[in-house]
Amino acid sequence: MTGQFGNKDKAWSARFSEPVSDLVKRYTASVDFDRRLADVDIRGSLAHAAMLAATGILSETDLASIQRGFTTIREEIAAGRFEWSLDLEDVHLNIEKRLTELVGDAGKRLHTARSRNDQVATDIRLWLRDATDEIIALLADLQRALLNLAERHAGTIMPGFTHLQVAQPVTFGHHLLAYVEMLSRDAERFADARRRINRLPLGAAALAGTSFPIDRERVARELGFDGVCQNSLDAVSDRDFAIEFTAAASVLMMHLSRFSEELVNWMSPRVGFIDLSDRYCTGSSIMPQKKNPDVPELIRGKTGRVYGHLMALLTLMKGQPLAYNKDNQEDKEPLFDTVDTLVATLRIFADMTTGIQVRADRMRQAAAEGFSTATDLADYLVRKGLPFRDAHELVALAVREASDAGVDLAGLGLARLQALSPLVGDDVLNTLTLEGSVGARNHIGGTAPEQVRAAIGRHRARLS
Amino acid sequence: MTGQFGNKDKAWSARFSEPVSDLVKRYTASVDFDRRLADVDIRGSLAHAAMLAATGILSETDLASIQRGFTTIREEIAAGRFEWSLDLEDVHLNIEKRLTELVGDAGKRLHTARSRNDQVATDIRLWLRDATDEIIALLADLQRALLNLAERHAGTIMPGFTHLQVAQPVTFGHHLLAYVEMLSRDAERFADARRRINRLPLGAAALAGTSFPIDRERVARELGFDGVCQNSLDAVSDRDFAIEFTAAASVLMMHLSRFSEELVNWMSPRVGFIDLSDRYCTGSSIMPQKKNPDVPELIRGKTGRVYGHLMALLTLMKGQPLAYNKDNQEDKEPLFDTVDTLVATLRIFADMTTGIQVRADRMRQAAAEGFSTATDLADYLVRKGLPFRDAHELVALAVREASDAGVDLAGLGLARLQALSPLVGDDVLNTLTLEGSVGARNHIGGTAPEQVRAAIGRHRARLS
Amino acid sequence: MTGQFGNKDKAWSARFSEPVSDLVKRYTASVDFDRRLADVDIRGSLAHAAMLAATGILSETDLASIQRGFTTIREEIAAGRFEWSLDLEDVHLNIEKRLTELVGDAGKRLHTARSRNDQVATDIRLWLRDATDEIIALLADLQRALLNLAERHAGTIMPGFTHLQVAQPVTFGHHLLAYVEMLSRDAERFADARRRINRLPLGAAALAGTSFPIDRERVARELGFDGVCQNSLDAVSDRDFAIEFTAAASVLMMHLSRFSEELVNWMSPRVGFIDLSDRYCTGSSIMPQKKNPDVPELIRGKTGRVYGHLMALLTLMKGQPLAYNKDNQEDKEPLFDTVDTLVATLRIFADMTTGIQVRADRMRQAAAEGFSTATDLADYLVRKGLPFRDAHELVALAVREASDAGVDLAGLGLARLQALSPLVGDDVLNTLTLEGSVGARNHIGGTAPEQVRAAIGRHRARLS
Amino acid sequence: MTGQFGNKDKAWSARFSEPVSDLVKRYTASVDFDRRLADVDIRGSLAHAAMLAATGILSETDLASIQRGFTTIREEIAAGRFEWSLDLEDVHLNIEKRLTELVGDAGKRLHTARSRNDQVATDIRLWLRDATDEIIALLADLQRALLNLAERHAGTIMPGFTHLQVAQPVTFGHHLLAYVEMLSRDAERFADARRRINRLPLGAAALAGTSFPIDRERVARELGFDGVCQNSLDAVSDRDFAIEFTAAASVLMMHLSRFSEELVNWMSPRVGFIDLSDRYCTGSSIMPQKKNPDVPELIRGKTGRVYGHLMALLTLMKGQPLAYNKDNQEDKEPLFDTVDTLVATLRIFADMTTGIQVRADRMRQAAAEGFSTATDLADYLVRKGLPFRDAHELVALAVREASDAGVDLAGLGLARLQALSPLVGDDVLNTLTLEGSVGARNHIGGTAPEQVRAAIGRHRARLS
Repeated sequence: MTGQFGNKDKAWSARFSEPVSDLVKRYTASVDFDRRLADVDIRGSLAHAAMLAATGILSETDLASIQRGFTTIREEIAAGRFEWSLDLEDVHLNIEKRLTELVGDAGKRLHTARSRNDQVATDIRLWLRDATDEIIALLADLQRALLNLAERHAGTIMPGFTHLQVAQPVTFGHHLLAYVEMLSRDAERFADARRRINRLPLGAAALAGTSFPIDRERVARELGFDGVCQNSLDAVSDRDFAIEFTAAASVLMMHLSRFSEELVNWMSPRVGFIDLSDRYCTGSSIMPQKKNPDVPELIRGKTGRVYGHLMALLTLMKGQPLAYNKDNQEDKEPLFDTVDTLVATLRIFADMTTGIQVRADRMRQAAAEGFSTATDLADYLVRKGLPFRDAHELVALAVREASDAGVDLAGLGLARLQALSPLVGDDVLNTLTLEGSVGARNHIGGTAPEQVRAAIGRHRARLS
Repeated sequence: MTGQFGNKDKAWSARFSEPVSDLVKRYTASVDFDRRLADVDIRGSLAHAAMLAATGILSETDLASIQRGFTTIREEIAAGRFEWSLDLEDVHLNIEKRLTELVGDAGKRLHTARSRNDQVATDIRLWLRDATDEIIALLADLQRALLNLAERHAGTIMPGFTHLQVAQPVTFGHHLLAYVEMLSRDAERFADARRRINRLPLGAAALAGTSFPIDRERVARELGFDGVCQNSLDAVSDRDFAIEFTAAASVLMMHLSRFSEELVNWMSPRVGFIDLSDRYCTGSSIMPQKKNPDVPELIRGKTGRVYGHLMALLTLMKGQPLAYNKDNQEDKEPLFDTVDTLVATLRIFADMTTGIQVRADRMRQAAAEGFSTATDLADYLVRKGLPFRDAHELVALAVREASDAGVDLAGLGLARLQALSPLVGDDVLNTLTLEGSVGARNHIGGTAPEQVRAAIGRHRARLS
Repeated sequence: MTGQFGNKDKAWSARFSEPVSDLVKRYTASVDFDRRLADVDIRGSLAHAAMLAATGILSETDLASIQRGFTTIREEIAAGRFEWSLDLEDVHLNIEKRLTELVGDAGKRLHTARSRNDQVATDIRLWLRDATDEIIALLADLQRALLNLAERHAGTIMPGFTHLQVAQPVTFGHHLLAYVEMLSRDAERFADARRRINRLPLGAAALAGTSFPIDRERVARELGFDGVCQNSLDAVSDRDFAIEFTAAASVLMMHLSRFSEELVNWMSPRVGFIDLSDRYCTGSSIMPQKKNPDVPELIRGKTGRVYGHLMALLTLMKGQPLAYNKDNQEDKEPLFDTVDTLVATLRIFADMTTGIQVRADRMRQAAAEGFSTATDLADYLVRKGLPFRDAHELVALAVREASDAGVDLAGLGLARLQALSPLVGDDVLNTLTLEGSVGARNHIGGTAPEQVRAAIGRHRARLS
Repeated sequence: MTGQFGNKDKAWSARFSEPVSDLVKRYTASVDFDRRLADVDIRGSLAHAAMLAATGILSETDLASIQRGFTTIREEIAAGRFEWSLDLEDVHLNIEKRLTELVGDAGKRLHTARSRNDQVATDIRLWLRDATDEIIALLADLQRALLNLAERHAGTIMPGFTHLQVAQPVTFGHHLLAYVEMLSRDAERFADARRRINRLPLGAAALAGTSFPIDRERVARELGFDGVCQNSLDAVSDRDFAIEFTAAASVLMMHLSRFSEELVNWMSPRVGFIDLSDRYCTGSSIMPQKKNPDVPELIRGKTGRVYGHLMALLTLMKGQPLAYNKDNQEDKEPLFDTVDTLVATLRIFADMTTGIQVRADRMRQAAAEGFSTATDLADYLVRKGLPFRDAHELVALAVREASDAGVDLAGLGLARLQALSPLVGDDVLNTLTLEGSVGARNHIGGTAPEQVRAAIGRHRARLS
C-alpha cells in the first residue's frame, strides 16, 4: 500500500522530513485507551458513508465495500484478532488502515468530508450517551432497592441527627428516602447533560466545515442524535459535555460518599444500628476478630477520584484558543474512568443495600435517649398559647433539670412539668413519646410513617 | 427582654453553663457575610407568617404586627440604620430579635413551625434563584453584543487555527459565533440548575418536619417556587444546587477564559488582529509605551477563583452524615463570590465586545499565508475521482514544493500543479482563493458567510 | 500635581486617548484588598530608597525626604486618616502618590530602578514570610496544648480503631500524639516553603532588570531575605511560593479536619468519649436540648475553602507565558484568606484542646468490648511456636465461639481456650487484659504508656 | 494448604459466614495495579525477616527458607510466570501465599509482628522514594539541556513580553534560564518531600505497634530510610507524603505547561520565533500542509491530569478518622499515574529541547518594533536629573509622537528628542539600541549576556 499510512513509520506525510521518534510515538499515541471507542467509531463511519452515498459523494459500490469491510473488522475485534498498532496512533487510523487493506480505494474514500477532529468528537459523544443511559438505569435500580428497604422500615424509629447529636426521632424509611431524593436529582442532572451530549459534531470537518454537499441531519437521525452542532469551530473544540457529565458524577459520588459515611458509622460497635452482609466486608491480616466495612469505605474513597477527574477536565480546557488543540486528547481517560467508577459503584451499592440488616432495637434505644422530643414539648406549649421563643426557653430549663436528674423529659413526671408552666395539661405525656413525635410530622416531606409510604408510592410511580 | 436572645451574651440557652468565647463568636458568626440575605430572609418570613395565619397557627393580629415590624426593619436596613450584632451570630437572629423588639410576642411567634435549618436553606435558594435570573439575562446581553459584531464581520476572512497553526480560512463572524454557541449552552445549564434551585425547603423545620398543620404549597406559591422539597432530612442538608450552580459557573468562566486568551493573543503585536479600546487596557509603571490588555487577562485569571469555589463546595459536602451540620455554613461565601464574579465579568465582557476594533487586513494577510486552502485542493482532486487519502498525500507533496520555492499553492502555477496530477483542470485556481474556500463550506455549521448570517438570525430569534 | 498620577482619571498616560471606564476601574482595582500590604510596601520602599542612596542613584536629601514622608504616611494609616482611592488602582500607587504630595520630587524619584512587577512580588513575599512565621508559632502552641493533654492521658485506655471498628486498645495519649506528628510535619513543610518565599525579587524591575547600578544584596540583607531571585523574568512571574504555601495549608487543614471529625464522633451520644466545653458549642433555634459541636464542624467545613484556594492558584498559573500578566493579581485574595483561616483555626483549636473533657470510663468500656486483644492471643500462640497465619486462623475460631456465646475472649475461660490449642498455658489470661496489651507494645512508636511519655519528652525538646 | 489463604474463596476467615461476592472481589481488589509494588514488597519483607531473625523472633533456618523463597518468586515475576490472583486481593497476599507454597511454615511466620497496614505504607514509601530520585535526576537532565541551549543564545536578542505585549528586549538565553530557575525550585521541593517520604512505618503493625521485641532502627538502616515514624497510629494512616509529592508534581507540570504554551506560541506562523523538529510534531488527517506542535500541547494538557490527582488525594484524606481506613487504597493509582506522567514528560521535554531551532532574525525583528527601549530613554533622563515619574510621562509623549509618525524612538531623530527635553544629549541614541538596552542590565538576575553566562556557570556548578 502506498499513501499516508504506508509512510507513517517514516514520516507523518510527504510534508515531513523526519519520522516521529519512538519516545514521541508512545507519548502521543492514544490507541491503548481509545480502542474502547472502536464500536462507536465504526457506527459513526457507517452512518457517514451512508450519507456520502445518499448525497452522491460516494458510489453505492464503494459504500457496499465499506460496509463489508466493517463487518469483517467487527468480527476481528470481537474475536480478539484485530492487531492494534501503536504506529497508527489511535483507534481511528487503526481501523481506517485495516479497512483500506480490506477494501482498497473505497477505504481511502471514507475520510472524504470529515476530519479526525469531528470524528473523535462524534465517537466520544456516542459512547458517553450510551454510558449516560446505563447510569440512569443503574440509578433507578439503586433507588428501587432503597425504596424496598424504606418500605420495610416506614415505621422503624431511629434518632434523627443534626451535628451528629440526637435531634428528633425520625423513621428509618424517611432517612433512606432522603437518599432517594438525592439520587432522583442525580438522574435529572444526567438527563439534562444527555441533551447536550447528544448533538452531532460530524460535518464540522477539521474546523470550518467541508466543501462537499453533506447532509448532517441525515447522519444525526441515523445515529440517534437530537440535533447537529451549529458551529463547526465549536463542534470540534467543545468538551463542555464531558465536564458537565463529570460534574454530575461528582455530585452523585458525593451523595454515595455521605451514605457510605453513615453506613460506616452505623456499623461501628458503639452505634450498631445496622450490620452489613459479610460479603461486603473483609477481615484483617492480623486481627482475627475484625469485620471491616470495606465497600462503603472504598466508595467514600473513590469520590476523590471523580472530583479529580472533574478538576482535570476543567484545567484542560482553561485558556485553550479555538479550535482543536492536542490538549483535548486528555479528555478520554478521565471520562472513561469516571464512567467505570460510577457503573461499578452503583451496581455494588444496589446489591449492598439488599444486605443491610437493621437493628431496630438499637435505633429505638438511641432515639429514646437525648431528649429527642423536647421540640414536641415546646410545640405543645405554643399550641397552648406561649410564644415559641418563650416555649423554647422553658423547655431548655426542663431539659437541664431532667439531665441533672438523669431522667428523660417524661421521667420528670407530670407534676414537675406542670410546675414549669401552668399551661401543661394531662395530655402532655403523649406528646413526649417517640411514636407521637414521629406521627405528628404528618405533612408532605415530614417523617410520619404515613408520609413515608406516600412518598414511596410517588417515587415508584416516577420510576416505573 | 428575657428569653433566648437576652441570654446570648451569657450562654446559648438555659441549657448552657458557659457563654461562647469571643474567639468562638468571631469564628462561628456569619452575619458579616450573610447579611446580604436580609431581603430574602424577610420575604421568606413574611410568606411563612402569612401561611401560619391562614392555617390558624398564628392570629391575624400577630400577622399584622409582624408585617408592620418588617416594614420598619426594611426601612432601617435601606437607610443603613440597622444595627448588626456579632453576638446574634447571623442574619436570621439579628432580624428576628429586632422584630421582637419592635412587635413583642408576635415576633416570638414567628419561628413557630420552622427552624434556622430550613430558613437558611430557603433564603439561599431564593437569593440564588434571583442571581441565576440575572446571570441568564447578562448572558443574553453578551450574546447580543457578539451577534452584532459577528454580523459586521460575517464575511471578514481570518485564518482558522488548530494547534495555533493556520488550518483553513474562516470568517471572523463564524469564529465569534462559536462563543455564542458556548454561551447559549451556559444559559441552558443555568436554566436547568434553576429548576433544582427553585424548590422550597421551608417546612422541613430542623430535620423532621413539624407537628403544626402547615401548608407548604401555599408558601411555595407565594414565593414563586416551582414546588416543595419532598423529604425534610434532604431539604435541610441538600446543597446540590450550590454545587450545580458553581459547576455551570466554572464552565462559563472557562469559555470566557478561552475567549480572553484569544483576545490577548490577537492584541499581541506579532498578531495584531484586533485592538481593544484604551478603556480596557492599562499602561505600565515603568514602560511608557505599553498598552496592556488587563481586562481579558484578569478574566482569564478569575477563572481559577470560580474553579476553586466549586472544589470548596464539593469538598465541603463530601462525607457529611445527615442531616444539617455546621460545615454547611461555609456554603455562602463561595456562592456569593461566584455570583459577584460572574455578574461583573459578564457585564464588562459585553461592554468590551463593543470596543473590539478589527484589523481585517492583518487577518486576511495571515489567512493568505500558510497554505490554508490546501484542503480545498485535496477536495478538488477528490471530486475529480481521486480517493481522499491519495489526494491528501499528493497535496502534501505540492505544499512541500511550494514551501521550498517560497510561494503559496497558487504561486506554483497551473502547469506545476497539473504536473502533480493529470486531474488538475483550469478551474483549480478558483478553489485556492480564500473567498472560494470559505464560501464553499456552505452547510449548517459551516463558515460560509451565508451560513453565518443564517445562524445569527436563529440566535436572535432564540434570544428575543 | 502634573504627571502620571494627575492624569489617572483622564487616561493611563499620555499614550492613551481614553480614560479607563468606571466599570473597568472597579473590576481591575485591587486597593480594596491589597491595602493590607501597606506596611510591607513601605518597608520595601524604604530599603529600596536606602540602597538607591547608598549607590549614589538618589541623593541623601531625597532619601531623608522619602523617609520623612513615609513616617507621616504610616501615622496616617495607623490613625485611619489615609484616603485610599480606587482611581489609583492599588496600594502601591496610592502610597506613592501620597508620598509625592508630601515630599515632591523626591517621591517621584522613588520608583527609579524598579517596577510595580518586582515591587508587588517583594511585598507579597515579605507579607507571606511574616504570616508563615506566625503560623509556625501557632502550630507550636497547638502542639504544646496537645502534649499537655496527652501527658495527662498517657495511660488512659481507649479502643484503637481501624475502619471505625475496634481493633486493638491504645492509650488516648498515644492517639493525641498522632496529631502532634502530623502538625510537626506541617511545621516542617512551612519552614521548607519559607526558604523559597524568602528570596528577593526587587531589582528585576519590569522583567529584565534595570540599567541603574543597583545593589540587590544590600536590599536583601536589610529586609531579612535569605538571598536574591537569580533571574529577572522568573522573579516577576514566579508564584510557586504562593502555591507551595497553600498546599502546605491544605495538608494542615486536612489534619485538623480529621481531628475535628473525631471530636464530633467522640461527642456524639452513642460514643460519648469526650465532652467539649460549652463555649465551643452552640444550641439549636428550635431544639432546646441540643449542644452542637459547631467549632470542629466549622473547621472541617473550612477545609474545602483552603483546598479551593490551592486549586484557584494552580489554575491561575497554568499556561501563562512569561513574564508578568495581569492574571497574577488574582494571587492575593486566596493567599490572604488562607492565612486568615489558618491563623483563626489554629488559635481556636489550641484553646478548644484545653476544653476537652475526657470520659475515661466510656473509653475503657468501649475498648473492653469487641475482642480488641485478639491479636495479643495470636501473638501469644506465635511465641509458643505456632506460625502466625495458623495462630490468626485459630483465634478467628475462638472469636466466633466467644461471639456466639456472648462473652469476650477471657470469658471463654482457660479450659475452652486450651481446648483450642494445647499451646495455651495458664499465663494466657494476662495477655488478654487491656493493660497487658497496651503495655506490651513497648517499642519506639508503640502505644505503651512508657513510649507515650518518652515521645512527649522528645516533642517538648523539639519545640523548646 | 489449610489456614487463612485456603479459605479465601469461601470466606475471609473463620469469623465470616459468607464469602465475598465476585462483584465485591473485583471492586475491592488492588492486585491489578499494586503488583508494580512487588519488588519493594519483597525488599521490605526480606528486611523484616532479617530483623525478626536478628532479634530471635524467627529462626535462622526460617530466614534462610524465606530468602530462598523470595529468590524464586523474583525469578518467576521477572520471567512473567508468576500467577497473580484476584482472589488474593493484593500484591501482598499474592506474594505471601506463593512464599508459603514454596517454603511452608516459614512463610506463615513472615507476617509475625507486622500487618498489611504498615506493610503497604512501607512499600509505597520505598517505591515513591525511588521514583523521586529518578525525577530529580530527570530534572537535572532537562536543566542541562536548557543550559546548553541558553549558552548558545546568551546574546540572542528577543522581545521580553509582559501581558504578551513587547516590553523590553531580553536575551533568549536569559528567557530560558527563567525555566531553569523554576526547575531548580522543583528539584528542591522534591528533595524536601523526599525527607518526609523516607521514614519507615514498619513496626506500627495494624495501628498500635506489636508485642514482639522488634528492632525498627535496624530495618530502617537496611532499607535506607532516614528514620522511623514515631507514632504507630500516624504511621499507618499518614499519606501526607503522597499529597506533598503530588503538589510538587503539580507545580512542575505548571512550569512545563507555561513553557509549552510559549513553544506553541513561538511556533505559530505569525510569531515564528522557533521551529520544532519534525519528530515532535504531527500532521493533520485532512490538511496536508499542517505541522502541529503536538508534544507541547499534550504536555500542557497533561497538567490537568496531575492537578486532578492532587485534588483526588486531598479529598481522599479529608475527614478520615484514625487510623487506617479502606479509603486509603485509593492512594495508589493517582500516585502511579503522576509518576508515570512526570517521568515520560521530563524525558520527552529534555529531548525536545535539543530539537528547538531558533530563528534569531525573527526574534530580533520583533524586539526592534514596539518601542521596547522606551524605559531606557526614561532611565537616561533620570540619570540626567529628571525625577522618574516625570521622565516616564515625557517618554510616553515621545512614544505617542513616534507611533503617530510610524517610526521608532530613534527614528524621531536627535533634534525631535532634544525638543522634548533639554536634558537629551548626543549620546541618547546609544541608549535606544537593543544591544545597549540588554547590555545595560548588568546586575545579578539581569538580562545582560555577561550575567546570563555567569548564571549558566552557577547552575552547572550546582548540577555537577
